Order: sequence, then C-alpha cells, then structure tokens
Amino acid sequence: MSEASDVLVHRDGAFTTITMNRPKRRNALSRAFLLQLTDAFRATAATDARGVVLAANGPVFSAGHDFADMAGAPHADVRALLRICTELMGTIQSVPQVVVARVHGLATAAGCQLVASCDLAVAAESAGFAAPGGKGGWFCHTPLVAISRNVGRKRAAEMALTGEVVDAATAADWGLVNYAVPDGDLDKAVHDLLRRATQGSPASKALGKQAMYAQFDRPEHDAYAYAIEVMAASSQRPEAQEGMRAFLDKRPPTWPA
Amino acid sequence: MSEASDVLVHRDGAFTTITMNRPKRRNALSRAFLLQLTDAFRATAATDARGVVLAANGPVFSAGHDFADMAGAPHADVRALLRICTELMGTIQSVPQVVVARVHGLATAAGCQLVASCDLAVAAESAGFAAPGGKGGWFCHTPLVAISRNVGRKRAAEMALTGEVVDAATAADWGLVNYAVPDGDLDKAVHDLLRRATQGSPASKALGKQAMYAQFDRPEHDAYAYAIEVMAASSQRPEAQEGMRAFLDKRPPTWPA
Amino acid sequence: MSEASDVLVHRDGAFTTITMNRPKRRNALSRAFLLQLTDAFRATAATDARGVVLAANGPVFSAGHDFADMAGAPHADVRALLRICTELMGTIQSVPQVVVARVHGLATAAGCQLVASCDLAVAAESAGFAAPGGKGGWFCHTPLVAISRNVGRKRAAEMALTGEVVDAATAADWGLVNYAVPDGDLDKAVHDLLRRATQGSPASKALGKQAMYAQFDRPEHDAYAYAIEVMAASSQRPEAQEGMRAFLDKRPPTWPA
Repeated sequence: MSEASDVLVHRDGAFTTITMNRPKRRNALSRAFLLQLTDAFRATAATDARGVVLAANGPVFSAGHDFADMAGAPHADVRALLRICTELMGTIQSVPQVVVARVHGLATAAGCQLVASCDLAVAAESAGFAAPGGKGGWFCHTPLVAISRNVGRKRAAEMALTGEVVDAATAADWGLVNYAVPDGDLDKAVHDLLRRATQGSPASKALGKQAMYAQFDRPEHDAYAYAIEVMAASSQRPEAQEGMRAFLDKRPPTWPA
Repeated sequence: MSEASDVLVHRDGAFTTITMNRPKRRNALSRAFLLQLTDAFRATAATDARGVVLAANGPVFSAGHDFADMAGAPHADVRALLRICTELMGTIQSVPQVVVARVHGLATAAGCQLVASCDLAVAAESAGFAAPGGKGGWFCHTPLVAISRNVGRKRAAEMALTGEVVDAATAADWGLVNYAVPDGDLDKAVHDLLRRATQGSPASKALGKQAMYAQFDRPEHDAYAYAIEVMAASSQRPEAQEGMRAFLDKRPPTWPA
Repeated sequence: MSEASDVLVHRDGAFTTITMNRPKRRNALSRAFLLQLTDAFRATAATDARGVVLAANGPVFSAGHDFADMAGAPHADVRALLRICTELMGTIQSVPQVVVARVHGLATAAGCQLVASCDLAVAAESAGFAAPGGKGGWFCHTPLVAISRNVGRKRAAEMALTGEVVDAATAADWGLVNYAVPDGDLDKAVHDLLRRATQGSPASKALGKQAMYAQFDRPEHDAYAYAIEVMAASSQRPEAQEGMRAFLDKRPPTWPA
C-alpha cells in the first residue's frame, strides 16, 4: 500500500501493523477513514497474522471524529456515521487477532475510544487521553461507552465532564492502558507485549478473545452459562487436545497452522 | 434560607452549594431530611446553576440513616424510607448540573452512598468512608449498590464485611473519590474541579451526564445502541453545531443561555 | 478428617479452614476433588462457624483443572466437569460464612478463579496469579468470568492473552486480592482480616454477603429494587433491631446464637 494511503497496512512476520496515516487531519475519523480502517481490520482478520498493532503517524494518535464532516450534517447522517464508528470498535473486538494500540501523542474522543476498544494498549509516557466533547457544545457519548468499561465510574465521569487530558501514567493506573513506557521504548514495549500475548494456538486464542467480550457485561450467572458452553465445545478442538497432551507428556506442543 | 434549616442552599455565581446542616445528628438521613435534600436538588435543577457542591456542617459528612427513625419501625415504613433514600441518590444522578461531593470527616453507610452517588467527589485527607452495617446487626445493602459501582468487587466486599473506615487516600486509589487533598485545600480543590467540570454548553453537558448513567450498567452492545441515538439526536442542538463551527473557525464558542 | 484426605477441614474457634491437600497433584481440580471441596463448603455452611479460610498444602495454591482428567474426555464430560467447577465457585459465594482465600504459591487457571470467587483474599508476596490457558491450546474461558469481575477489562485481557504470572503486589493493586503481605505474615494477616470481617450478627452478615453478589452485575436501578426489598425485610430481624437499639442505648449489642 502506497505512502499516499490514509491507512497503511504492513505485515512483518506474524504481526500486521495498521497505521492511521492522515497526519495533517490529526487522524480524524472521517466517514471514509472509518470505513478504510474497518476494511483494514477485516482484511487482516482473513490472514494468518497472529497479532495487530494499531498505530498512527503524525503528532497525535487520533483527534476523534472529523468536525468538517459533522458540522451541519443532518441527524440521519450523524447517526449513520456513529454506527459506522461503532462498527469499527466492534470489529477490533471481533477479529481473531490480538490487537494492541500503540499510543503516542493525544488520543481524544473517538481516538480515545479506539484505545479503549483495543484488547491491549501501550502508551508512550508523553501520550495523553481525553474525552473533550463535554467541555465544548456536545458530549463524548459513544466514546464513554468504551472508556467507562476500562476505568472506574468516577474516573469516567471526570474524563467526560472535565474533558481534560489524562496523562499516560494515570491512564495506566486507571486501567485504560496496560503500560506507560518511556517514549523511546514504545515500539519495543508494544512488540514485547504482542509477542507475549500471541503465544499458543491462534485458533483457540481467537475464540477466547471473542468469548471474553461476549461475557464481560453479562450477569455472572449468565456469563458462566455462556463460558461453560464455549469452553466445553472448544475442548474438543485439536489444539486443546494437543496442548493438554503436550503438557502431560512434558514436551512442547505443536499447533495446527 | 436561615441557619436554622437542616438543608442550606447557597448560590454563589454559577454554583449552588447544598449543605447538610444537622450537625448534632451527625447529618443522619432521617425521612424528613432525605425529602428536604431531594427537594433542594430538585429546586436547584430548575435553576441556571451550572454545578452543585454537596457539603456538610459539623464533625462528620453524614452518618447515614437515623436509627432513631428506624428502630422499631415496621417493614413497610423501612421499605418506604429506603425508597425515599434511593430517590435522593437517583435525583443526584438525574439533575442537569454536575454534582461534586465535598467530603470532610466520616461518610458512613448511606452517607458513603451519597458520595458514591455524586458525579465527582473530593475528600479531605482526614475524611473516612465506611459501610458499617455488617459489623452490627444489619447490613449496608443499598449503600453497597452505589459503592460497588465505584470500587472493585473485592474492595466493596471488604468495606461491607469489615465495616471499617477506609481513609481518603485509599478511597482515591480505589476510585470512590476523584481526589484526596490536604484538609486546608478542600474548598479550593472542590471549586477547581467543579469549574473544570462545568465548562462548555450546560444543556449538552446535562444530557451527557444523564446519558452516561443510563449506559453504565448496560451490556456494551445495548449501551452503544443507546449512546448512538442520544449522540446523533444531540448533534442537531444549536450548542453542538456552534461548538463544531467555532472549532473549525478557530474562534471561541458562544453557548445559548 | 485424616491427613490422607484430599480436603482437610479444621475448625478452630469461630473459623473453619478448608485446605486443599493434593500437593503432589499441585491441588489440581479433578472432578472428585471439586466435589469434595463443594461438599466441604456445604458441610461448613451448616455449622455455626463464622468464617472460612480456603488454604492449600504444597508448593502451589492450585494449578487449576487436572489435564489428566480432561485430555481425551468427550464434550459432554468436559461440560459436566465445568458445571461442577462453576458449582463450587457459586457455593463459595452462597455459603453464609465470610470466605477468605489464603494464597501462597501459584494460583493458576481455575485455581486463580477460586481466589477471584472468594469474598476476600490475602496473598503472600511470593504468590502469583495466572490464567495460562490462552498461551497453550485452549483458553481460560470460565476462570475469566470470575477474574474479569475483580480486575479491569484491559488487565483481564492481559492475563487471559499473555497467560503470564501476575505477582501478588500487582494483584493487590488491581483488586484481585485485598492484601499482599510478607510470606511470614500470611496466616496472621488472613486471620486478622477474617476476624475483622466476621464482627456483628452472623445471620445478617450472611444475608448481606449473599445479597451483595445478587446485585453486583445488575443494572443500578434493578440492583436498588432488589437491595431495598432485602434491606427492608431484614430490618425486622431481631439482630437488626438489637443492633439499632444497642447503638441508641450506647451499649454493646448481643446477637442471637
């Protein structure tokens, strides 16, 4: 894919990096850009890549929705845009690969929602996170869905109501990102985490990731009812059997391709 | 309102302070006092105040329910009292203003529930938080609903089962309050947070706050379905349009009164 | 119960310690062992013990399911086993006693789920916690139900996807355990927490604990509707009345046996 593209997809070994490449627009999530990102995740989902890095070019990670698209847009168009945006967030959670956000610079509004929606996230210590809609004329309603499922309620309320930037160390303390690392260590930390998170059988891990999101918000009893069925069914997969036999035989396992 | 009132309501500029003023009763939440507090929030809701501080006079923030009301009360009366108490907690979350708890001294049982139910909270470092019912003869059933939605499950269980006082620094670490500050800085910190949390369009912020609570406990998919509709509809409000146009025009926005 | 038993049950004063005693099998949770543990909790539930410690003999707390049982087992058998395991987790939450996990060594997979399912947990600082299925050929689907209800989403995802060991201090920071203490202080810390958590009326505390789990995952409005009914009904119990009257009379309460 050429450097001129808004979304760069680069495969390196087992991992694919999807890079937001609208630096002059601060990686604002226009309708076309959201669709391109969703397509990039869907195309990667169909490959044998084991992990995905969501990265960004330019001074910020992503500034969220593109007001140039939204100002003056009628209700139906905004609604359609938000559905497209939500589809991207859901796609990240449903692709079989482990997805790690590589966050440098500011991740604001739907850009912060992207971080919250990735399975894992590593931030440069200079990165920042904000849901600024509420300090303007609107409110980060949909970003808060994702953000409030990563951090506690009082902290979600503080982000939503003040709209202020939370630094990377605080974001790690609150659980919005897994790690905040020195800026110079960001790529190393991302790839180290991705390597650790992609060990084992890709097929079983994909099923595990998808089932995890399915049970998160259910009442505990329902979550167990669901998880028991997925776990029992997946026990019959060759990977599960190979994993158990290798453990019992004290030998390294071999996974199907 | 005179100093003799149990609930003091004081408007200063954009903010209204609602002060619990039953110091001799440790601001115990009797039936009448709960109704007065609810009335104070409802009356303030109808004003153009942009933020509310919930404060307290006397040595403690609030000791919770008033056992003088409850001892010997029949089932139906206790049930009615708990419904009145829950109505206050819900009112705090539904008023259009940002509500910040200003916590000094102890906040126990339904007093701690009040803190948990405010949008934001700042505590003096000498403040303390407890759900002590379980170390007596009863249990903080309804306070735990609010407390467990602010802190993790193991921490909620520890508070409920031990009934012990959690200090302000720990409460901030667990997410029950946003900040723990030196006692002498409490008012400054409360007003600083309130000022930061009330920037922007009041109408959009009110809608945002209310929608946030509506989505918190929903499964993620349902939360998105809800948030998309609120966000799309609110995009058509003059404040949202003004906010976007001002951003694109690089000028300060002007909000409707 | 003789030392040869897989599950040791020891009553000492007000507390019962249930000890997993399959050290050579790393306290792996075979079908028979799960049933024995469930029986031990049920038998203890029927006693007047006020608290329970879940402890373990041997180098680890528990290694989770026993692959010797599971490798080659048909779908229906794995499903039945997971239902038995889930029954144990639910039993811990439903017994009237406060249950504290005493964690030394590794608690992995369903062993980590056990810790997450206890009301409270204290870990030796050398203890570790992991959900390693996902780095093998399967995935810790059911353990994640419990783990993700103790820690934030990103942290649950990191544990599930990397399968790596989280140390005790981190587990305490994330809310998976209440305390991480020096190894030599483990018993003292467990009994100190249990003593503090079992003050007051046993009957009301039992009701409180059970109701707490019933409301945790409900939408806030439903949780309140439920908690109001339980709290109003329990206000009529002699313990609740005695607790309030003793408080008002400024005398120590006396609980029914």
